[in-house]
Amino acid sequence: MILESIVVTQDSMAVTHITPLGIQMDGEIAVLAPFRPSRTLDNLIANGNATVNFTDDVRVFAGCLTGRRDWPLAPSQAVITPYLANALTHLEVAVERIDEDALRPRLHCRVLREASHAPFRGFNRAQAAVVEAAILVSRLHMLPADKVDAERAYLTIAVEKTAGPRELEAWSWLRDRIDQFRSGNRHGGAA
Amino acid sequence: MILESIVVTQDSMAVTHITPLGIQMDGEIAVLAPFRPSRTLDNLIANGNATVNFTDDVRVFAGCLTGRRDWPLAPSQAVITPYLANALTHLEVAVERIDEDALRPRLHCRVLREASHAPFRGFNRAQAAVVEAAILVSRLHMLPADKVDAERAYLTIAVEKTAGPRELEAWSWLRDRIDQFRSGNRHGGAA
Repeated sequence: MILESIVVTQDSMAVTHITPLGIQMDGEIAVLAPFRPSRTLDNLIANGNATVNFTDDVRVFAGCLTGRRDWPLAPSQAVITPYLANALTHLEVAVERIDEDALRPRLHCRVLREASHAPFRGFNRAQAAVVEAAILVSRLHMLPADKVDAERAYLTIAVEKTAGPRELEAWSWLRDRIDQFRSGNRHGGAA
Repeated sequence: MILESIVVTQDSMAVTHITPLGIQMDGEIAVLAPFRPSRTLDNLIANGNATVNFTDDVRVFAGCLTGRRDWPLAPSQAVITPYLANALTHLEVAVERIDEDALRPRLHCRVLREASHAPFRGFNRAQAAVVEAAILVSRLHMLPADKVDAERAYLTIAVEKTAGPRELEAWSWLRDRIDQFRSGNRHGGAA
């Protein structure tokens, strides 16, 4: 089962990096498999710790895909890397073992601390649509234009019916990004 | 903003009814707008209270759409109606005001108590796909067959990539329901 998280890491100069990452939980182990090369992977190897954040503020997902990576952080207790201030829940983890792989090494990270900050307030279809659109935006260069159009049209329905202000803002960032990509690639298709 | 909840109500004989319902929160007021006629509306008028449950166990959403309405409940504290035992969070509410409407009266319900039982563990794309498929199943009689096929094919991708056991079980119930509907309505279309 893949959980859509926001992973915060730090390099050896304590510069933080915030990125969406699908993770797997196996008891007290969080399995992170960032692509090679990536700053998240570099930081995990350099620093050996991270926070895994579960937030319902989908602006963080959409923001990280559209150049808005500066989200408020708060100090952790069990690791040096801070956590995402608007997380509903976060995990403080330390890398315990690495399964090497040329494309996506799997980092088995032990959960040293879990903290819950706010209750789950239910599924929101617009939030799910933003998460799907963020994945779409991350793959624009690989997807044919008609597929992008069809998915966007489908996802728009849930956004229009169920979104709140945060979801609308996140959606506008992703929509603008698709428009920008299109205006620079009028014929779409694989780049 | 619409939150996808599971609403539990009771009739005057203390028979409980469990149903998915999109609700809106306005501060300490939960606005419920069940369709007329419905057992949920009858019960809310007869009894004046309910629980609004936020769960990530999507089997409850899929189950209620496929004849599996018997989910474990637990006793509430501020109202007589029980709450859903596998809720991550639940609200105990009392009807305060009704905006009458021929189709969907709006019941303004005051939150008397909120309780959180387990932390949010992140978005899961398969959970969102099950919620969308449950809505699809509730509208099979109104939708053209090709639209149902297209949505189902789209949603299947996230299920295959990210589901855990609960999501796969919920998905199988909805998939079987679509197949049953199709075998009885080979030409699909509006009924």
